[in-house]
Amino acid sequence: MTTNQQRGTADIGVTGLAVMGANLARNFARNGYTVALHNRSRARTDQLVAEHGHEGTFVATESLEELVASLAVPRRVLIMVKAGQPVDDVIDQLIPLLEAGDIVIDAGNSHYEDTRRREAALAQQGLHFVGVGVSGGEEGALNGPAIMPGGPEKSYEALGPMLEKISAHHDGEPCCAWVGTDGAGHYVKMVHNGIEYADMQVIGEAYDLLRRVGGIEPAEQAEIFTAWNQTDLASYLIEITAEVLAQKDEATGGPLVDVIVDEAGQKGTGRWTAISGLDVGAPVAAIAESVFARSLSSQPHVREVARRTLAAGIESVEAPQPADREEFVEDVRQALFASKLVAYAQGMDMLAAAAQEYGWSLDLGTIASLWRDGCIIRADLLDVIMKAFGGRDTDRHPEPGTRAEGQPVNLLFAPEFSQAIAEALPAWRRVVATAVTAGVPVPVFSSALAYYDGLRADRLPAALVQGQRDYFGAHTYRRTDRDGSFHTLWSADRSEVEA
Amino acid sequence: MTTNQQRGTADIGVTGLAVMGANLARNFARNGYTVALHNRSRARTDQLVAEHGHEGTFVATESLEELVASLAVPRRVLIMVKAGQPVDDVIDQLIPLLEAGDIVIDAGNSHYEDTRRREAALAQQGLHFVGVGVSGGEEGALNGPAIMPGGPEKSYEALGPMLEKISAHHDGEPCCAWVGTDGAGHYVKMVHNGIEYADMQVIGEAYDLLRRVGGIEPAEQAEIFTAWNQTDLASYLIEITAEVLAQKDEATGGPLVDVIVDEAGQKGTGRWTAISGLDVGAPVAAIAESVFARSLSSQPHVREVARRTLAAGIESVEAPQPADREEFVEDVRQALFASKLVAYAQGMDMLAAAAQEYGWSLDLGTIASLWRDGCIIRADLLDVIMKAFGGRDTDRHPEPGTRAEGQPVNLLFAPEFSQAIAEALPAWRRVVATAVTAGVPVPVFSSALAYYDGLRADRLPAALVQGQRDYFGAHTYRRTDRDGSFHTLWSADRSEVEA
Repeated sequence: MTTNQQRGTADIGVTGLAVMGANLARNFARNGYTVALHNRSRARTDQLVAEHGHEGTFVATESLEELVASLAVPRRVLIMVKAGQPVDDVIDQLIPLLEAGDIVIDAGNSHYEDTRRREAALAQQGLHFVGVGVSGGEEGALNGPAIMPGGPEKSYEALGPMLEKISAHHDGEPCCAWVGTDGAGHYVKMVHNGIEYADMQVIGEAYDLLRRVGGIEPAEQAEIFTAWNQTDLASYLIEITAEVLAQKDEATGGPLVDVIVDEAGQKGTGRWTAISGLDVGAPVAAIAESVFARSLSSQPHVREVARRTLAAGIESVEAPQPADREEFVEDVRQALFASKLVAYAQGMDMLAAAAQEYGWSLDLGTIASLWRDGCIIRADLLDVIMKAFGGRDTDRHPEPGTRAEGQPVNLLFAPEFSQAIAEALPAWRRVVATAVTAGVPVPVFSSALAYYDGLRADRLPAALVQGQRDYFGAHTYRRTDRDGSFHTLWSADRSEVEA
Repeated sequence: MTTNQQRGTADIGVTGLAVMGANLARNFARNGYTVALHNRSRARTDQLVAEHGHEGTFVATESLEELVASLAVPRRVLIMVKAGQPVDDVIDQLIPLLEAGDIVIDAGNSHYEDTRRREAALAQQGLHFVGVGVSGGEEGALNGPAIMPGGPEKSYEALGPMLEKISAHHDGEPCCAWVGTDGAGHYVKMVHNGIEYADMQVIGEAYDLLRRVGGIEPAEQAEIFTAWNQTDLASYLIEITAEVLAQKDEATGGPLVDVIVDEAGQKGTGRWTAISGLDVGAPVAAIAESVFARSLSSQPHVREVARRTLAAGIESVEAPQPADREEFVEDVRQALFASKLVAYAQGMDMLAAAAQEYGWSLDLGTIASLWRDGCIIRADLLDVIMKAFGGRDTDRHPEPGTRAEGQPVNLLFAPEFSQAIAEALPAWRRVVATAVTAGVPVPVFSSALAYYDGLRADRLPAALVQGQRDYFGAHTYRRTDRDGSFHTLWSADRSEVEA
């Protein structure tokens, strides 16, 4: 670290000017900030200035040295490069150029463990490292994304106001707030994406059922999804589903969705979410099933053999009669809503578990408030979820691993949601029963229902599992009627001993 | 590394004499090998010699130096300590005592990534490091476990015959064979455990359905499971389930299973299996759901609130009439069998994916043969699975990531299994539909069915997911009718461009 005598005036530097970085830079500039620009190859920098220089004040620089020299103190350098080694490479180059109190921001989709490592390393140099989750795609980056910053709380004084200004706003409130120390920002963004996977999958299951059981073609489904967007399902993803289903393919004249290869990629944040859920012991089955549904879809050779080899074994399920059609569509809508709620409940549950694991003060109400606008999962529902968790309070930082007072221990227990699910339950059960009878795969509808029924069960067969484990591995079990650990002498006289 | 002039005569040294290590040591001794013993505290060593010294030839030693000095060359040192840092600690102490060609064996439940790291590190010193999966619990360790050794193939010449001798045998063949390089042994053992989780969970789901829908009490279920053990379900886990369900609790006079706390732990190899499945992109949903079922069961406070808060929303499902009871029980048996097959198929699928990821030559037929006896999932079914994968051939080492010629690309495609599932399908569908209607959670029954229906689907809603991703993130999609990547200009004129 050297003391850099040359004081610049730019408010923030952005390095990495592919579309996300360029759009964030323009967003800052449009909001009145002076933005220093840097890219490994100069061409992108020049292109940005040539095309968008009129939008605000940009300082084009040739090198990271120049970039840093152009910045006001404390320096704010935002990195937007490919997650992984490239981030470390840029950080390594930056460290000797910066001085204590400067702020390095990673706005890419980095893994939270990398962010934790980097934050600790830079803290030793007196630097603030802030991992920031940004959601909303290219358009969000330009016009106002949801922003989830982690890192040292103190860094938020100098950085937060800028991020809040460029973020999406909902009811006048920025979709940006400090969420917690070190990797918390990237973690929250990761869980956002895990929920997004589930949200897309349940929409897909609804579509599949409407099509295969209901006999409803995409164009007509577009109208149904448009109508659903006026219900408690109202959300960006429902809205764009209607758009996608309405889209005609130029080449064939049929629905576009019918010519798209039905293989969805799954490397990335959805997978990380499921893995972290397993790591922290949170049952995020709906999210994991969404990831597995994608990986199954991406086995074309296996599927090709399966189509030839595996029996359907279905009783023929007739499309609902016109008289029953409306009811079937409404059943599917209810099943979709209930399953989606479970995915959110599981995501929130894993945030709470992670807060305990990593010592973060995550406020679930505030986190839900960040997702109300700008991001992919934005939905009216998020406002209700926010309120269920006590509303937005950016000063509320519960003890790590605890919840703010009055917050439900599971989202499903909030009265508005337990009531909504109670109303949806008969339809939800009918839909899953119909799907399994008709041979339509509904991995998340059924997994979410199993989660719900598991939670509320008086007794679970886990008792039998514990008995088996004691039998073959002397793992011992606890008793419902007294404290202690017990073992049955299975291979002797089968008496019980206290372990 | 020092050249150790003092040549000993013991065939193998065992360090770490808790019950698993002690029983393996006794097993070696009973099979005629001279076994050198070491434990951090000498007391365990003395106890073993005092109680079991008559079973064979033991050499008690005071230190790792003494242990190593007592061994014939090439030295074989088997470590059986707690997975994690303790293994590294012992290795660090051993390295300077050994010389090129010696073999260090880790027989604990280490994570395969640790094993890969250790194998690479020891190879640099000219030492062989062999990660060995051992299954069968304490009794297996003593009387013949299933053994899954990885590590350098060359090490198997000096080590394999000993391991084969102490392993379980099936039809005269040892349940032990070299499975692949570096971490392959521990990986195969991990997947064994993941399958074990699923196997136990599906038995639990069957029990829960028989009880809650069928109204059949544990004592009577014990008879049913005993009868099932004469069918294609015949297996150790079914056998001990009957024993556990038959067990009366001394204190209450009721079934033991009813006084066992219904919370099952999940930290460990099952969790690792689900995580690795996600990592290598294999859809191991049935295994993951088993892990999640355990973590859900271990949230007693959440469950307590859920019982008070969440509606059941079930239509009352009456217990089957006596006339239908037998049919219901058989339906459940078929659902259990089909779900179990899917769990095996997923486990095998992930082994193939891991072979590609890590460059292992895994032969699925041989691996299945190792599980036929000695281990927890031993079952008649494993013999059929082995045959479906071309039988046991310990010399057959397919190219990494490929399968031996003629092996089905998915276990379910083997004619005997696709046929068995075809027969089970109507019952399987009935059982899952009944469970979701009656509010009995069957996460693995339903997940396995969704996997089956997903595999055989003509089209999956993944096409819609790809359309959504193109809409909000310009992720592009592929078309079914021509090569290339495409993007619809959603926010412009909605024409399609080639990306």
